[in-house]
Amino acid sequence: MTTPLNLDALFRAYDEGVSAEHIVRQVYARIAEVADPCIFISLRDEADVLEEIRAMGPRDASKPLWGVPFAVKDNIDVAGMATTAACPAWEYSPAQDAFVVARLREAGAIVIGKTNLDQFATGLVGVRTPYGAPKNAIDPEIVPGGSSGGSGVAVAHGIVSFALGTDTAGSGRVPAALNNIVGLKPTLGSWSASGSVPACRSVETISVFGLTVEDAYQVYRTAAVFDPGDSYARRIEARPLETPPSGLRIGVPDAATLKTFGDTVQETSFRAALSLLEKAGHQVVEMDFTCFYDVAEMLYEGAWVAERYSVIEQLLARDPEAILPVTRQIICKAEQLSATDAFRGFYRLKDLARRVEGPLSQVDLLCVPTIPTFYTVAELDADPVGPNSNLGTYTNFVNLLDMCGLAVPVPPRTDGRPGSVTLLGAAGKDALLAETALGLEKAGTRTLGATGWKRT
Amino acid sequence: MTTPLNLDALFRAYDEGVSAEHIVRQVYARIAEVADPCIFISLRDEADVLEEIRAMGPRDASKPLWGVPFAVKDNIDVAGMATTAACPAWEYSPAQDAFVVARLREAGAIVIGKTNLDQFATGLVGVRTPYGAPKNAIDPEIVPGGSSGGSGVAVAHGIVSFALGTDTAGSGRVPAALNNIVGLKPTLGSWSASGSVPACRSVETISVFGLTVEDAYQVYRTAAVFDPGDSYARRIEARPLETPPSGLRIGVPDAATLKTFGDTVQETSFRAALSLLEKAGHQVVEMDFTCFYDVAEMLYEGAWVAERYSVIEQLLARDPEAILPVTRQIICKAEQLSATDAFRGFYRLKDLARRVEGPLSQVDLLCVPTIPTFYTVAELDADPVGPNSNLGTYTNFVNLLDMCGLAVPVPPRTDGRPGSVTLLGAAGKDALLAETALGLEKAGTRTLGATGWKRT
Repeated sequence: MTTPLNLDALFRAYDEGVSAEHIVRQVYARIAEVADPCIFISLRDEADVLEEIRAMGPRDASKPLWGVPFAVKDNIDVAGMATTAACPAWEYSPAQDAFVVARLREAGAIVIGKTNLDQFATGLVGVRTPYGAPKNAIDPEIVPGGSSGGSGVAVAHGIVSFALGTDTAGSGRVPAALNNIVGLKPTLGSWSASGSVPACRSVETISVFGLTVEDAYQVYRTAAVFDPGDSYARRIEARPLETPPSGLRIGVPDAATLKTFGDTVQETSFRAALSLLEKAGHQVVEMDFTCFYDVAEMLYEGAWVAERYSVIEQLLARDPEAILPVTRQIICKAEQLSATDAFRGFYRLKDLARRVEGPLSQVDLLCVPTIPTFYTVAELDADPVGPNSNLGTYTNFVNLLDMCGLAVPVPPRTDGRPGSVTLLGAAGKDALLAETALGLEKAGTRTLGATGWKRT
Repeated sequence: MTTPLNLDALFRAYDEGVSAEHIVRQVYARIAEVADPCIFISLRDEADVLEEIRAMGPRDASKPLWGVPFAVKDNIDVAGMATTAACPAWEYSPAQDAFVVARLREAGAIVIGKTNLDQFATGLVGVRTPYGAPKNAIDPEIVPGGSSGGSGVAVAHGIVSFALGTDTAGSGRVPAALNNIVGLKPTLGSWSASGSVPACRSVETISVFGLTVEDAYQVYRTAAVFDPGDSYARRIEARPLETPPSGLRIGVPDAATLKTFGDTVQETSFRAALSLLEKAGHQVVEMDFTCFYDVAEMLYEGAWVAERYSVIEQLLARDPEAILPVTRQIICKAEQLSATDAFRGFYRLKDLARRVEGPLSQVDLLCVPTIPTFYTVAELDADPVGPNSNLGTYTNFVNLLDMCGLAVPVPPRTDGRPGSVTLLGAAGKDALLAETALGLEKAGTRTLGATGWKRT
């Protein structure tokens, strides 16, 4: 019998005497069953994982993630496994785990493999990879989402309990929406970036995909340890979750500025989610979202693309063909940008941040659709850039404004596609987002990801 | 009889029935007496000022700076007067006062004129100006200091009670050291920059020169009003001064990293100042200052020069000869800098900031010599760049590290030149700096600036 891998169910199974070896065997059986060779870029040998499990000894209550299998986006280091960032020419073998990976392993979690991504984490679609695009777990016609596509799909299929992604423009949230799972993008700096391949170092974070809000938050909390070795790390406490609050003021795009690119089903789904928030006692406050979209445009139109360029500059000089044409096209825009352009970008961002301060001060949180609509793989083949940009409508502005975000499933759309909204808050509000998301998650009876497992 | 213009003495004179007209006449008499035509770039007509005084009516206790004459660096707007930034081709006529000027005038202070500066506030020497260099108030052989040279000299001569400067690299502190007065560089964003010509907008602030610590702090406090129109403004409270604290841990450069470029008299003066701090009950903690000097180098070697470039880019394209060769040479380095270079600079600054965090957490404040040594005008003529760089030894790192600073006179050096140290603290510690500086200022009997007036 298959044990559901959400932490509640998994820990109950361990309580009931199920062995970690059994769970590891289930993980590999599930990988075989899913039979998508593009989810992982590299996978550990099952025998090695079993050996690690046996060496861990009996269950240890002091380890909050004991025996929990997880996957790691392949731009984050795991000692002894290659890191590629989905670029074979980039491959290196790290001597040690990324800081957050080390914290999770110390807590007893078990690495299974390294997952596929949009090359150098540049994209929101999950198909910009020379390793072949993983298939969306819910509907293979739809893009898996990216850049953390493999991680999102692995969790949605119930292969692992959780997976690490990274998030600059929405890479930790868009795959969650497309695969019916939770995506938690921590406050910048609350998770160390040490041991990850940066995209935009100044506005990026490692993120986590989980089957439930509690799972994602528990993983977040476990690894939210200040890392003095990461100059962008901040001392931000990840407090335990408390009773979900009531009576919050939650800002949402008003009718004039809600963007779904003609997808009225998505609009209906979003409004239904807002009704759930109102039923939970919150007050929905409509806002003009233009100023947020103005910020969003800066991420790829402004100077920040130069951060991506700084990462791959040497590789570009040495072996430009090693980088996918679409990725190169996007990142090489930085060659036209001067330091003066960069500062002009910061000035404009400061101006925009000041402009959103007023609206933001009127509410406790924001709630947006995680994605404005869905795109098929075929649509991406026809236009590799346009749909990608549209997918970032509600995600691109978040990191530039130093907000945290949590993408949470809501009841399925009327056409059966997954519903998802994202709660957004000021830096440090991660716990409040999770508490509020719990209420949304509990609405209706839904399955977790593509698994058929129910939230208990 | 001349009324001393430090606020304490001035307000006592007003209490005793001296009229504001009398003070204004004294100001203009003093300008004539000093007879340095290079202090001001533009001066108001005495008749206009007298008319303003009469229109103000009788003394108003609700206005904390009623009848206080002040000067404004000519890169800060005063309505009805030209702003040049010491570049005639840049000249414009602002319709309104800069935000802080407006706050000071509301409080009853009287603008006398606009002061000379290193062109576009680029320099620490005060001689890089097409309007002729003002003479140092203490010793005309020595450079006046810059970039706020005219403001420093005007205060030191007792022409005005206080003067506004700006400070990116030390422009609000170096002239204070060279002219025996106080230079207060506020926490970034606590004073609005609205209505000033930026040099490096992201790390710059308007600053104040005063004859005493109390004066500078009172002016600071009066104008420390949050300005929503300045995107870099921060909500930082400028609290009233309290009893000077005791028992502070004060970090200072250790013997190996104290830099005076061979000026042993300056070293002796600095050590005497540290003894004063110890006598006041503080603990002097020697530190390796290398990490601070590494930060300092970034201001002109790193990407921040592109901020200066962004300001003058259009003028450079239209009329390059309008800009002084030395200024052009420094600022045009930015033409070689890409956006990628800019981000690399930020990464390095973040790394350095993390490195100084440990040492800084061990102390309450830092104390450094304001300048490492003195340079003559002749030395600057021979080498326009080297001495300028050296003068920034203890000032260049401060704004990049988001610290506030207060340059305060200490007893004269053994050769009679002015002694000065600067207290530095984390953002928001402006009041603590002033309270600590009060103890230093009271040591010995000294005259204020070049005036012969005594602190009472």
